[in-house]
Order: sequence, then C-alpha cells, then structure tokens
Amino acid sequence: MKTFLLKPQLLLLLVLLAFSSCRQDNTQVETKTVAVAAGDPLPSWNDGQLKKDIIAYVEKVTTEGSADFIPAGDRIATFDNDGTLWAEQPAIQALFAFELAAKMIQKDPALAKKQPFKAIAEKDKSYFDKMTAKGFFDLLLQTHAGMSQEQFEAEAREFFKAFKHPSLGLTAKQLTYQPQIELLQYLRANGFTTFICTGGTREFVRTISDEYYGIPPQQVIGTSFVYTYMDSTNGLMREPKIMEITDEKGKPGGIQQQIGKRPVFACGNERSGGDIYMLRYSQGSKYLSFQLMVNHDDAAREFAYSEPNNISLDWAKKYSWHVVNMKTDWKTVFVK
Amino acid sequence: MKTFLLKPQLLLLLVLLAFSSCRQDNTQVETKTVAVAAGDPLPSWNDGQLKKDIIAYVEKVTTEGSADFIPAGDRIATFDNDGTLWAEQPAIQALFAFELAAKMIQKDPALAKKQPFKAIAEKDKSYFDKMTAKGFFDLLLQTHAGMSQEQFEAEAREFFKAFKHPSLGLTAKQLTYQPQIELLQYLRANGFTTFICTGGTREFVRTISDEYYGIPPQQVIGTSFVYTYMDSTNGLMREPKIMEITDEKGKPGGIQQQIGKRPVFACGNERSGGDIYMLRYSQGSKYLSFQLMVNHDDAAREFAYSEPNNISLDWAKKYSWHVVNMKTDWKTVFVK
Repeated sequence: MKTFLLKPQLLLLLVLLAFSSCRQDNTQVETKTVAVAAGDPLPSWNDGQLKKDIIAYVEKVTTEGSADFIPAGDRIATFDNDGTLWAEQPAIQALFAFELAAKMIQKDPALAKKQPFKAIAEKDKSYFDKMTAKGFFDLLLQTHAGMSQEQFEAEAREFFKAFKHPSLGLTAKQLTYQPQIELLQYLRANGFTTFICTGGTREFVRTISDEYYGIPPQQVIGTSFVYTYMDSTNGLMREPKIMEITDEKGKPGGIQQQIGKRPVFACGNERSGGDIYMLRYSQGSKYLSFQLMVNHDDAAREFAYSEPNNISLDWAKKYSWHVVNMKTDWKTVFVK
Repeated sequence: MKTFLLKPQLLLLLVLLAFSSCRQDNTQVETKTVAVAAGDPLPSWNDGQLKKDIIAYVEKVTTEGSADFIPAGDRIATFDNDGTLWAEQPAIQALFAFELAAKMIQKDPALAKKQPFKAIAEKDKSYFDKMTAKGFFDLLLQTHAGMSQEQFEAEAREFFKAFKHPSLGLTAKQLTYQPQIELLQYLRANGFTTFICTGGTREFVRTISDEYYGIPPQQVIGTSFVYTYMDSTNGLMREPKIMEITDEKGKPGGIQQQIGKRPVFACGNERSGGDIYMLRYSQGSKYLSFQLMVNHDDAAREFAYSEPNNISLDWAKKYSWHVVNMKTDWKTVFVK
C-alpha cells in the first residue's frame, strides 16, 4: 500500500492519474454490520479538533431552539465518491470502461484499429498518458452507451462481482473508507439525508450505493446519458450522448436538478479540484453549513497525492473549510 | 364548475386547452391535517371495485412471504401532477408564464412588439389558439430563464401566494384532489416512496410539493433547464435552454435519471397522452405493478374533457390499467 505507482497494471494507473478532472463512482461498506461504539458516533476518527467540530456542528443544527437549528427536511448532505468515500487510485470506473472496451474488441476485432480501442488493445501507455478529461468522457461514451439500461446494469453488476484492486487485491467494497461510512450513518441518525454527487456516471455508482453506503439510487447524482424510450422493448436505450456532467462547476447544477436545495454539509477530496464548487455552493446556504475536504496524505495506509495547482487545499484555507488529513484524523482507513 | 369555457380569462383558458401535450406542476393538500377515517385508508374514494383493487394490491405487495412481495426500497410510486393531483383547467404553470411575461413587458415595453409577448399584451386569443407544444415550451424558455434560481423561486412563491383560479376562485392548494392526497398517504404508510413526474418544470412544482402533497423537492421530476454556476454570486443561472422534457416518451427517461428504478405504481390522467409511456414503463417492472389513469368525466364537480384520439383510455383498455372515473369513484373531489 505504498504509493500508486506499483506493479501489474501500471498502465491503468497512469491512465487514471491523467484524468485529472474525471471523478467516478463506487464505494462499499455494509452499513448494517458496522459496529459503532456506544457513546462515540465516530469511533474510527481520532479524537481531535476535527472530530469535535463535526460533532459540535451536528449537535448545534439539530437542537431545537438553537439559533442554528435546521429543519430536518433541509438537512441535506452531499458527498463526492472517488477519493471521498472510496479509494480512487486507480479510478474504478476507468477500469470498468477498459473491461467493456476489451469485450467490445473481442466481439468486433476491427475496433482495435481506432482509438481509444487501439491503445487498449496494444496497451499503449503513451496514449493514455496524454489523454484529457474530454478523452475520458469520450471513452465512457463509447463503452457505456449504445445499449439498453438493463444491459448496462448487468455489465456493472458483473464487474463489481469480479473486481479486485490491481495492487491491493481488495474488492470494491473493501476500498471504502470506514470513517466516512460512520460519518454517513451519524448524519442520517441525526435527520440528514445523505446524497452522493460524483463526476462519474450515476448508474455505475447506483449499482452499489445502497449496499456499500446505505444510499439508495435516487440519492446518487452523477454524470448522465441521454435516454431514448423504446416502444419495442418498453425500455430505455442509452444514447452515446452526455446530458449533464456533474463534476467541477457542474456539481451545483446537478445538485439543484436532483435535490432542489443547497446542501448544508458537503464533503469532497483534493486531487483535481472537482469538488471545490460543490463545497463553495454549500457555503452559500442560508443555514450554518459545514465543508469537509479530504487530503490524501497517507502513503502507508492508502495513497499520498496532491494537485498540481493545490486549488482544493488553497480554497479550504481561503474559505475556512475543514480538512481531513487521513494520516492523523483517521484511526482506520478501509472498511473491515 | 360546469365546463372550462367560462367567463373572465377566456383567453387564458383557450390557450391552455391548445397546449395539448404540455403538462404542469402543482397541487396542494396539507398532508398533515387530512383526517383519515379509522379502518378506511381511502375515505374519499367510493366503495367499489377500484378501491378494492388498490387496497388488495397494496396488501399483496407488502405482505412478507407473499409471492408478490416487494422490498420497501423498490416500492416506487410516480404520479403525474396536472389533472392527476390537481386540476389542470387551466394549466396553472401557463398562468404563471403569462404573469411573468406581463411583468417583463412592464419593464421593457419594446418586448410587446414580438411574439409571444405581443399576443399577451394584445390579448390575442387567435395566437394562442394556434400555439403548439413547442410554442409553449418556448414561452417557458422566455419567461422562466435568464434569471438566478433564487429569483425564480421568489417569483414562484409570490405567484402561489396570490393565485386564485380564474373561474372557481380557489387557491392552488384548494385545487388539489382529496382522494389522491389520501392515496399518496396510504402508499407512504405502506412503505412506498412517492414521486411526482410532471411535464411541467420541476422547480415550479417543487415550490409547493412538500406543503401540498408531503412530497419533498428531491422527489419531484419535471422538465429541467440547463444551469450555469456563477462564481460572482455563488449561485446558479437558469439558461434559456431546456435540458430534458419529462413528458410523454420523456417520462421514463426522467424517472430513470432521478430514481434509477422502475415505478411499481404509476398514476396519470387522460388529456394529452402525456402519461401513457410512464404507465407502460411501470408495467415493465419485474414486480407486480399497478397503473391508474384518471378520467375527467365530472363536469358538475370538476371538468369533463377527453382527448381527440382517446389514446390514454384506449391504452388503459389494451393494457388492463385501472381507470378512475371521477364522477363515480370519488366521494369528494377537491381538498377541504
């Protein structure tokens, strides 16, 4: 578990690092079986100022009569997924896209003549090193669409069943963060409604959101495809056309489309600046709000990485957001 | 309460009848204050086969061990709004659009030189008689966008506060259907999650959905605008561009985007065929499902109208959907 440049699927890892503005969707933690120590709602968080601040915030906004009281219906919490609720090195949805692409090449070998399939077939690392965010979304368009919604869901379920992290050997569920699962549960126990807002595609995360996080599909916001209703099958065709990208400046809009309210609690992570507008937007709430930014500084237990421009941590400072330093704030990292 | 061609705002009424494929969003019934007779979950429904069928369905799918049992998380119910949860003669959102247009003309009299403002300023009934669905959405684009989300919400709240039905003199809340409020409550009491899926714009209905129906904003699906996040205000600008129209064949796609599951209970009404694909889609559920189509046949207590091509009632017959004949199935119509 040292750094991310490890052995076997080096290619994939490099690819994923290149997608600096692409986020994904998936995490796992069986919410029902997590033990919570009596009296401590966040047992996997180390005692310290951050934990105190989280608990003080929740107590303040849920105490009737308090000046900062928030009615239950307005207690909206939004969490990013990749790097916030589960590990993102590598991005799990990119691995899924590669797997779908490989299947497509098997069915139609001629595909291997054109990009990005050519690079996948030839394991051409240099192609992915240069890939832009646009290129990544193009890969999603070519692999995640042109099929029925049912087909897509079956593919995603199959992928998760077989998934093992390329270097850590963990299942997708085992890559979810225990402290975050506790935080989600703690918020829900205090009348918050918890949502995921991911830059990845919404249906991919919805495959596992309920099982891993206790978050039902209707509480998962993500990048979406255009659908066409098909009379012939009484079903939906996924068109190779993106309707909405819910990353970076697209997160506030995606939240409004789905929820219709500003979050009062928002949590993201540093890597690409993908979450800074969601946290900022939450800060515009008429209620007392809370912003949390996960800093990946734990090379020993997870990964250590930072943004080229450091914007997420810079904004955290500028706008007084709370920062989770994994190394010191989390007693454990992955769900057990 | 005879028919819809009544006195004062004849112009508006005619306009609205012309929007045969446009649906809207709004209804009202204080869910908390509705009295429900002990033992009868649907006291405003006349005793008869339909009421029996609804209750039998709910009992069947909520009884553990029953072959037709549906886990609570999959008990998804979707309701159209206009003509299904509240009266749609005239369409309340069109009245809102006219009001916004009139305000715009006041601010900028030059607008009155171009359509559709010209027709509104001149009360040119013939213009609206010929208006198509596209024309109606164009009117929405011109009146519902180009402002911040906060501004829009303030406009909508102000509209509802002052609203009186042009011929009936009722508030918007008083135009909601008592039997449907009871049905929503009954479904929720049995573990269903109730959603609105309207062809109107989602934020308009969200203004009142919680207060009138007990349905929070995140459970309202509707036609949506593209948003732009504005750094300068930390808010959203409503662009004059529609992202998704959730009417007719757009309803299944809108439901998938928002919920990620097929409804097992779907309810719409005849007028434009706007709900037939939602009901059909629901019928493709892997679970036992229930479809309900409201037939407006009650000229004395509400309105009597039918579709030129009768497709909603034809499909109800073809696909064995249940039909609510307001005249005979409902003991009372409007909420008290």
